[in-house]
Amino acid sequence: MIITLVTDFGSPYVGIVKGVIKTIVPNVDIIEISSDIPPFDIKSGAFVLYSSYKFFPKETIHVAVVDPGVGSERKAIAIKTKNYYFIGPDNGILIPAAKDDGIIEIREIKVSLPYVSSTFHGRDIFAPAAAFLAKERNFEKIGNKINNFNDLEFFKIIHKDNIECEIVFIDRFGNLVLSIEEKDIDLSNCKLLLEKDNKLYELKYVKTYAYANKGELIILKGSSNFYEISIREGSAKDFLKVSVGDKIKLKVM
Amino acid sequence: MIITLVTDFGSPYVGIVKGVIKTIVPNVDIIEISSDIPPFDIKSGAFVLYSSYKFFPKETIHVAVVDPGVGSERKAIAIKTKNYYFIGPDNGILIPAAKDDGIIEIREIKVSLPYVSSTFHGRDIFAPAAAFLAKERNFEKIGNKINNFNDLEFFKIIHKDNIECEIVFIDRFGNLVLSIEEKDIDLSNCKLLLEKDNKLYELKYVKTYAYANKGELIILKGSSNFYEISIREGSAKDFLKVSVGDKIKLKVM
Amino acid sequence: MIITLVTDFGSPYVGIVKGVIKTIVPNVDIIEISSDIPPFDIKSGAFVLYSSYKFFPKETIHVAVVDPGVGSERKAIAIKTKNYYFIGPDNGILIPAAKDDGIIEIREIKVSLPYVSSTFHGRDIFAPAAAFLAKERNFEKIGNKINNFNDLEFFKIIHKDNIECEIVFIDRFGNLVLSIEEKDIDLSNCKLLLEKDNKLYELKYVKTYAYANKGELIILKGSSNFYEISIREGSAKDFLKVSVGDKIKLKVM
Repeated sequence: MIITLVTDFGSPYVGIVKGVIKTIVPNVDIIEISSDIPPFDIKSGAFVLYSSYKFFPKETIHVAVVDPGVGSERKAIAIKTKNYYFIGPDNGILIPAAKDDGIIEIREIKVSLPYVSSTFHGRDIFAPAAAFLAKERNFEKIGNKINNFNDLEFFKIIHKDNIECEIVFIDRFGNLVLSIEEKDIDLSNCKLLLEKDNKLYELKYVKTYAYANKGELIILKGSSNFYEISIREGSAKDFLKVSVGDKIKLKVM
Repeated sequence: MIITLVTDFGSPYVGIVKGVIKTIVPNVDIIEISSDIPPFDIKSGAFVLYSSYKFFPKETIHVAVVDPGVGSERKAIAIKTKNYYFIGPDNGILIPAAKDDGIIEIREIKVSLPYVSSTFHGRDIFAPAAAFLAKERNFEKIGNKINNFNDLEFFKIIHKDNIECEIVFIDRFGNLVLSIEEKDIDLSNCKLLLEKDNKLYELKYVKTYAYANKGELIILKGSSNFYEISIREGSAKDFLKVSVGDKIKLKVM
Repeated sequence: MIITLVTDFGSPYVGIVKGVIKTIVPNVDIIEISSDIPPFDIKSGAFVLYSSYKFFPKETIHVAVVDPGVGSERKAIAIKTKNYYFIGPDNGILIPAAKDDGIIEIREIKVSLPYVSSTFHGRDIFAPAAAFLAKERNFEKIGNKINNFNDLEFFKIIHKDNIECEIVFIDRFGNLVLSIEEKDIDLSNCKLLLEKDNKLYELKYVKTYAYANKGELIILKGSSNFYEISIREGSAKDFLKVSVGDKIKLKVM
């Protein structure tokens, strides 16, 4: 049995979450997918979960917590999908992944540690809920069924030759993952223009980094089928000075 | 059986420590609480251990190594407390946590790898000692009993309306954890003034981040019952330009 | 059974690799030695693997992927050595460690996920190959035997009193690990001069950090027997403004 974690917690908070889980269910395997989502960046968290969840065994419990609303009235939810369970705040972070796998049922989490703090529901609610589910394997007992939830969609408008999208993730290489996928539009072997701050940049489509020259600005299909803007052995992030959430305009030539 | 790690090692040193442990005792669960304590910052290490240790199952072996004195005459010690074991250098890092749980016995570690380097006792002494204890479950065999140890206390002076304290930890959100706890003084619903570099900053007390406006400087009770200075969806660290160990003066209005 | 990981992937990619491995072989122990090798820095990856591999139990499968050539014609290889297995791209990253342990056989990996992307062979080839080997314990089945491979050697020229070498790793303390080992030359108790940008810096040899004054530039034998340039409780990296791969000239006085 595996519980994964996608959070913006950093240390020592992720370690504490693991301690809480192991105290309740000692034999579970805990895998950090990410503990360094940019602080409060729900969209990055949603993307990371969406691009990772399906590489884990069926029945894996995915916990994703990027939670600027902690301690307010936002709900804590658990989602059963076709192959997985998802646990996190009701702010949209779970939704792209859950929809992709096929939502079966959503419940409002009632499980928690005896004392619940105002600032660390990762420890006090989400970890115990995941551990409870790993231990009991009874989704009904996690709380009451609900029908409404806060949705989250990645921004994209695709006209014939004009694309508006957003940066949903930046990896440690400085690659910019865009909100458009191969299934939205086929960019293979296209030349593109990127417009930013009234400047135009040419983007060459390549199959992989090795087909670009060092320092060249390229676009390619990333490993999750999302398009990425990249510089071979350089950082597109530093070159273009952009952040997650920035809108991107592309023109197909 | 769980061994936790609180260190300033970073990679690859933490991985090597895990290898040494797994070679001696393959079935132990190793959990990193933190590997990125600010280099040489014993006080941050002590705080992280103190705020984390009790969330792990009883009998957990906590290893904490921030060790600027490595290779000198400082002792390597193991502490048995009411519910846990603690292993680390005799520089105070273990003490706040061990005292909090209740010290039963302290021993000077005699266990080590056959060859002990001058610079990496995490690998050569502390990892083998923890693994030995996990394997043998015989605390007496770890070394001789000692009665003296180097203490460590977080700095605080609390007058009626004037508080002097220090920053004991800064998390990745830039929240400043102070050395004062709820049990020291109840700040709920107080207004406070923070004095720094001859400037005064107003601090609003809130129950959780969500009750502050974005960008507002706030104080709240953190998840470990220590007070924290914070900026909602911003970094108090960057705003106030402070570091761990900096003294803080607060005036309750 | 243990699989270790040395990569420049960062999150979430390392988490995805773990998911792939756990899906194929649930009971394996996965240990990250490093996920933050400087991007594309094959030499740092090779050093980290070389200095870490032997601290793991025999039969451990070490996976090392720093792979600027991903998706090009470079081979994916698996090496059986006297005590371990190594898996990674054929760009030299595995070689110093494999040679040190003693190469028995090299094979070109044929195992992969059904769909292989152009940019993430860590997920699509190296993780499945490691999991396959952990599960089947049949090295022959991983692919055909090959005799040629791309070598990698750390740069060093040692004359009597003049040493030319390179920085092969910088740890989070800013210590500069050099490509020269104790077995190359005995520097104990020597005074050295470091030449950089036409300036000369005196380097005092010490046994461990604690024997230097704070702020003093020192050289010492690191925990892997490589010499390191260091500043006690400071960063030699920031002081000398150097990077991995930089050449270093030393003169023994």
